[in-house]
Amino acid sequence: MSDRPITSHDVARLAGVSQSAVSRAFTPGASISPALRAKVKAAATRLGYQPNLLPRMMVQGRSGIIALVIGGAYNPFHAATLEAFSRALQDAGKRIMLVQGESDRALDEVVGELVGYRVDGVVSALSILSQDAADAISAHRIPVVTLNSGIMTDYIHVVEIDNAAAGRAAADMMIARGARRLAYVGADSIASRARQQGYRAAIEAAGLPAPLCLSGDLDHGGGLLAGREMLAASPRPDGIFCVNDLTAIGVIDALRLEGGLVIPADAQVVGFDNIPAARWPAYGLTTIDQNVEIMAKRAVELLEEPVKEARKPTVVDFTFTERCTTRPLP
Amino acid sequence: MSDRPITSHDVARLAGVSQSAVSRAFTPGASISPALRAKVKAAATRLGYQPNLLPRMMVQGRSGIIALVIGGAYNPFHAATLEAFSRALQDAGKRIMLVQGESDRALDEVVGELVGYRVDGVVSALSILSQDAADAISAHRIPVVTLNSGIMTDYIHVVEIDNAAAGRAAADMMIARGARRLAYVGADSIASRARQQGYRAAIEAAGLPAPLCLSGDLDHGGGLLAGREMLAASPRPDGIFCVNDLTAIGVIDALRLEGGLVIPADAQVVGFDNIPAARWPAYGLTTIDQNVEIMAKRAVELLEEPVKEARKPTVVDFTFTERCTTRPLP
Repeated sequence: MSDRPITSHDVARLAGVSQSAVSRAFTPGASISPALRAKVKAAATRLGYQPNLLPRMMVQGRSGIIALVIGGAYNPFHAATLEAFSRALQDAGKRIMLVQGESDRALDEVVGELVGYRVDGVVSALSILSQDAADAISAHRIPVVTLNSGIMTDYIHVVEIDNAAAGRAAADMMIARGARRLAYVGADSIASRARQQGYRAAIEAAGLPAPLCLSGDLDHGGGLLAGREMLAASPRPDGIFCVNDLTAIGVIDALRLEGGLVIPADAQVVGFDNIPAARWPAYGLTTIDQNVEIMAKRAVELLEEPVKEARKPTVVDFTFTERCTTRPLP
Repeated sequence: MSDRPITSHDVARLAGVSQSAVSRAFTPGASISPALRAKVKAAATRLGYQPNLLPRMMVQGRSGIIALVIGGAYNPFHAATLEAFSRALQDAGKRIMLVQGESDRALDEVVGELVGYRVDGVVSALSILSQDAADAISAHRIPVVTLNSGIMTDYIHVVEIDNAAAGRAAADMMIARGARRLAYVGADSIASRARQQGYRAAIEAAGLPAPLCLSGDLDHGGGLLAGREMLAASPRPDGIFCVNDLTAIGVIDALRLEGGLVIPADAQVVGFDNIPAARWPAYGLTTIDQNVEIMAKRAVELLEEPVKEARKPTVVDFTFTERCTTRPLP
């Protein structure tokens, strides 16, 4: 078997037609009889031929490709985000160029390089944090949709949930169920700061002391360390809100395995993201779901929309999922 | 700001040079003075210009793009696989076209479509199961590297671990630590069948009764159901090998929370994949690691190699990681 790619010439020869007939058979809307088209397609299938899409991409200046930028895969929520976004893009008939990145500075470089492939847009799970990065990205004049970012431009759209409202909801729920000594385990991100701010506001409004605020890595190990700090704290928190489920599960493991506490009798815990492990019977974690499938759908729609006059984030509703780490209402 | 893309014409005008100078500034090895190149690059950066890569892709017939095909994201192992493969490809200077798929039939269709983008190769975490699919894929004459598949052609390379040896190792380890009533929780896949076959062979060689073999979904819920079946079985298994860690964790939850058993005193459990949750202190799961980063590196190398004479899979060593769900040696 030769390594030479199959060309339209090979197909034309096998089908006994002209190369122009092969070209027309693969061009939507081109003038060709159904019989001739079928003859060409049969020969193409037999040879494994596919028309080269590059010439059409060059003429149209659009590739049908969207770049999908995603952070570390250690968190099951990122895996769920990746799957939701790639399915939404595939359903919209787009091809996906995947980029693993770490920061908004990486995003700027990435977008620059991808311009060469004439990608039609970028969807990013990385937040855009600085105006510099936002300006550099916008200079490429490619629409970018990003999650939970604070900065918008004509070319940068934001999809988010109301993170402050989610923080308020977590505090209100645990307070209604008897928590009096609240704590928050967060991280260094825009979303985490907004959740913490809403959480603090609701606690203040209830006339309770300000929460103990810890921060750490966004994974199970970060939760374990935070849980140990809480076991050592005086007074010990009895209501704990965590920036994500992995951290919440780490906190629970520390409180139970190292502190001998019973959840939710001794301490209630609320997580964020609704990862699969939140449903495992060993945890049964009460959590807030960002509805990432809806976020993905909205992000893909935004890529298709013309540049907006008003720069406003697209807000998706969150869902509060009550399980066994919070108490029943008294 | 206009929606018109930045062209080499814009850069030439801003830099006060010819369009040909802009083209030469972006062509590696082209004849141009360092001063002129610097002038062009400065103007390009200011405008956010990137040269169009499509003409070079058309001339070379190579895009620098590798398609990465991946299955469902419910399993943290798939997320780890995706991350390892995408990092290996990025490190090799490749761009990644991501495709979410479900079966080898999907893989055939996917490869066909991607030929139009002139991808240089395909890396697939999906196994190729049928000769029909393998033939259809090979007809496109694009190198494909796949994991744990039984079928190879001139265009399909396989990277795998020795799954039968891993099954033997799991049985030998639990038997050496006192297990006498073995069980296997598997799934419908080539890798699972090979693991089961090695497991059975080692149990037979030890003169013990054949294992209780269950099969189910590859997730935590499948493990819960299998664990319930084991609690109801007579005799009840005291050594359980599971096709992946998620299933093993589900089995452990059922045995502990519903059966009141103590792990590993009442039953030893061995998983597969070494997902992050295997390290959580609530489980401390003994497991077999496929070393997916090495697999990814080998897969990327294979894409660059010429067609091989002998069709042999590339075998990567697995690692047995002993934690707390198996007993110490007596």
